[in-house]
Amino acid sequence: MSQSDDAAFFVKDIHTFALSQSKTYDYLTTLCTTAGPRLSGSEASYDGLAYCESILNQIGIDTLFRVECDVPRWDRGELDLSLKVNGKQIPIRATSLGNSLGTQGKSITGNLIEVNHLDSLPFRDIENKIVFFNRPMDPTQIRTFNAYGGAVDQRVFGASRSAKYGAIATLVRSIGTDIDTVPHTGVSVYEDDTPSKIPSVAVSTFDANQISKALKQGKQVTASINSTSSLRSDTASYSVVAEIRGSEFPDEIILVGGHIDSWDLGQGAHDDGTGCMQSIQVIETFRALNYQPKRTIRCVLFINEENGLAGGNSYAEYSNDNNEYHLAAIESDAGGFSPRGFTCTGHEDIFIPMLKNLKEFEQILEPYDLFIKKGGAGADINPLKSQKGILIGLSPDSQRYFDLHHTSQDVIESVHPREFLLGGAAMTSLVYLIDQYGL
Amino acid sequence: MSQSDDAAFFVKDIHTFALSQSKTYDYLTTLCTTAGPRLSGSEASYDGLAYCESILNQIGIDTLFRVECDVPRWDRGELDLSLKVNGKQIPIRATSLGNSLGTQGKSITGNLIEVNHLDSLPFRDIENKIVFFNRPMDPTQIRTFNAYGGAVDQRVFGASRSAKYGAIATLVRSIGTDIDTVPHTGVSVYEDDTPSKIPSVAVSTFDANQISKALKQGKQVTASINSTSSLRSDTASYSVVAEIRGSEFPDEIILVGGHIDSWDLGQGAHDDGTGCMQSIQVIETFRALNYQPKRTIRCVLFINEENGLAGGNSYAEYSNDNNEYHLAAIESDAGGFSPRGFTCTGHEDIFIPMLKNLKEFEQILEPYDLFIKKGGAGADINPLKSQKGILIGLSPDSQRYFDLHHTSQDVIESVHPREFLLGGAAMTSLVYLIDQYGL
Repeated sequence: MSQSDDAAFFVKDIHTFALSQSKTYDYLTTLCTTAGPRLSGSEASYDGLAYCESILNQIGIDTLFRVECDVPRWDRGELDLSLKVNGKQIPIRATSLGNSLGTQGKSITGNLIEVNHLDSLPFRDIENKIVFFNRPMDPTQIRTFNAYGGAVDQRVFGASRSAKYGAIATLVRSIGTDIDTVPHTGVSVYEDDTPSKIPSVAVSTFDANQISKALKQGKQVTASINSTSSLRSDTASYSVVAEIRGSEFPDEIILVGGHIDSWDLGQGAHDDGTGCMQSIQVIETFRALNYQPKRTIRCVLFINEENGLAGGNSYAEYSNDNNEYHLAAIESDAGGFSPRGFTCTGHEDIFIPMLKNLKEFEQILEPYDLFIKKGGAGADINPLKSQKGILIGLSPDSQRYFDLHHTSQDVIESVHPREFLLGGAAMTSLVYLIDQYGL
Repeated sequence: MSQSDDAAFFVKDIHTFALSQSKTYDYLTTLCTTAGPRLSGSEASYDGLAYCESILNQIGIDTLFRVECDVPRWDRGELDLSLKVNGKQIPIRATSLGNSLGTQGKSITGNLIEVNHLDSLPFRDIENKIVFFNRPMDPTQIRTFNAYGGAVDQRVFGASRSAKYGAIATLVRSIGTDIDTVPHTGVSVYEDDTPSKIPSVAVSTFDANQISKALKQGKQVTASINSTSSLRSDTASYSVVAEIRGSEFPDEIILVGGHIDSWDLGQGAHDDGTGCMQSIQVIETFRALNYQPKRTIRCVLFINEENGLAGGNSYAEYSNDNNEYHLAAIESDAGGFSPRGFTCTGHEDIFIPMLKNLKEFEQILEPYDLFIKKGGAGADINPLKSQKGILIGLSPDSQRYFDLHHTSQDVIESVHPREFLLGGAAMTSLVYLIDQYGL
């Protein structure tokens, strides 16, 4: 029997274990329903971290440690938004955008003006108005992440850029694929040169369409916003790192990770409870199958991916300070849907040959229909690029993700057990192959 | 610009059209909610056929005709099933299996005996008992269709084989992936040599587990069955065939198809409204993009896939009688989920070279992550094998299909628009490539 036959059998064992014995879907259920949503700095975020530590200790690992960092404490507060079309109130489903500030106890009222590109702001008369950003995600993109990437600038920078031209607030069409009444939150950023930290609020795609229609008909659309969103001073938090030390090449680290923090709506199930539990599944599977890795395997649960990236940045700093080398880092932060493959990036010095070597594993992964190709990896592992290992993102089917991303619908019931478990099995398989054969 | 660049651009146009302009999801919604479930011979089945004809006529095709056949008329009737464990009644969720007969006005009562393999029947004392088949689908199969194939013999032949050894009825664990209280119907067959057409009833997976547990504990489990299921004499029905005649090679037919009939529970959404509407999407897209095929494109909506295959068989007969040649036939009958690729089969004389040629299209389909590999094609097109063209099945992601297959949950709400439309775009793309380049 050849070496690659051995590998094929072990990859099959990994999948069999996942679909018949893994406990990670139960762990995910507990994380979602007991800790709940885990905004950085919230009590639930510490509960989630502690729960993951307890699982990892129970599974049995060589070392468990924390990498500390400071995280922002954003509080959604209460939002009172009323919308009038030609003086008549219409219903609106809205939610404050992450890290945005409220109205400091007073109500802000203004007329809406639709602007669909940040670049258009200087050419529109937005002074004392509420800018309504309404560019939809491009439905013709096959991978919805590409459509997300093409629309999210409105949410991230809309308020900051609008303030420079005198706007008093922004309403942003939810960055989502479907038309419904569920608003999507997500991070917004006040750039250093912003003259005023104006409020920024997401409205549901259905309501955005209604507003746009009214504006196109020449109607006056007026919003009154009263919001108590606030940002408190940073507080101490940490990422969790669990390690199985390699028997032959302990200094070559293969990292698997997801982020434990989530937005405060829903339960942070797909984003990114699934990524955390799939990373734990790698450790769980190796232990259950008595696999002793040659290289050091690290499972990292990052804090603060959503609104600061303090976990990813501090982990890379810690790692660089200790002169570590990550041969590969695999992040799962694209939802717990059926795995389609892996997308990879890395430092230009190493990327082409490493991707070529990695692609050789496609043959062993063929029964699972998993591709390996160039593409984005993940926000938390990106700071490791300077170590010149390969950065890999698990790439699940993306069609349903942005229906529920950053909404109240991102709950355990939306995670299909088999789809989720196959994602963890795909990650485990790739870690195993890299561990066995190097790159 | 090379020929394959042209092809890549056109395949992109096909996908762009699907995700932004196709009306097939609306058509599917109407089919599911207006006609509803479409058991062969039912009024709804004729409504469904007529609706598809009206869509095709509206889109504009060269020819539309019907291939007639006789179909069975099975009537589920009413099922009264009560179950007692050591004399105490427990709740049970059950439904009669397709084509099975009822109890002719009287009630049948007997003790349950669990048997998990048809081959075991001769060695068990099942006389005057109710055989309870309880072998689950193998959860470790990656493709759930393989697990279905490994379990469905109990449902199809359980009653017929049990009757030979004196059983009075059969209860069959639902052939489904998840544990819930929703029973799955599906066809059962009385073989010619069966001494008695005993009733056959599916129970939900949750209830099957409860029954099995009680039996393992040595408890007496008794069922009383009163069912009015019946089979009336065959009636006339038909498959619908819509054709765009080829400009260069009109005698080389490329078929796309699905089956219009469905079980009577749910709405026949994934099984197989999606396959019908994806087949119509091929025609819709070619017309919208003004594509004149070189070869003859046929969209076929088969009747009676579920409980007889009269549509598939009569179509092949019709085609053979007219000395036709199907260069390729593509069936979509595996659910309207995200397309993963195509599986192919065919007559041994042509299969290897044709598959090799077909696989060359994988490169153009790479942006859509679609594989082309060996595997099953589809029940309706299988009778065309003797024409020595290639038979192809659209292969969608299979993880969720057997949660809802043949149940009351197979409704339009379970079909994700983008997943469904991408399946139709995948089929359209493959038809286009075969039409352009031959095989």
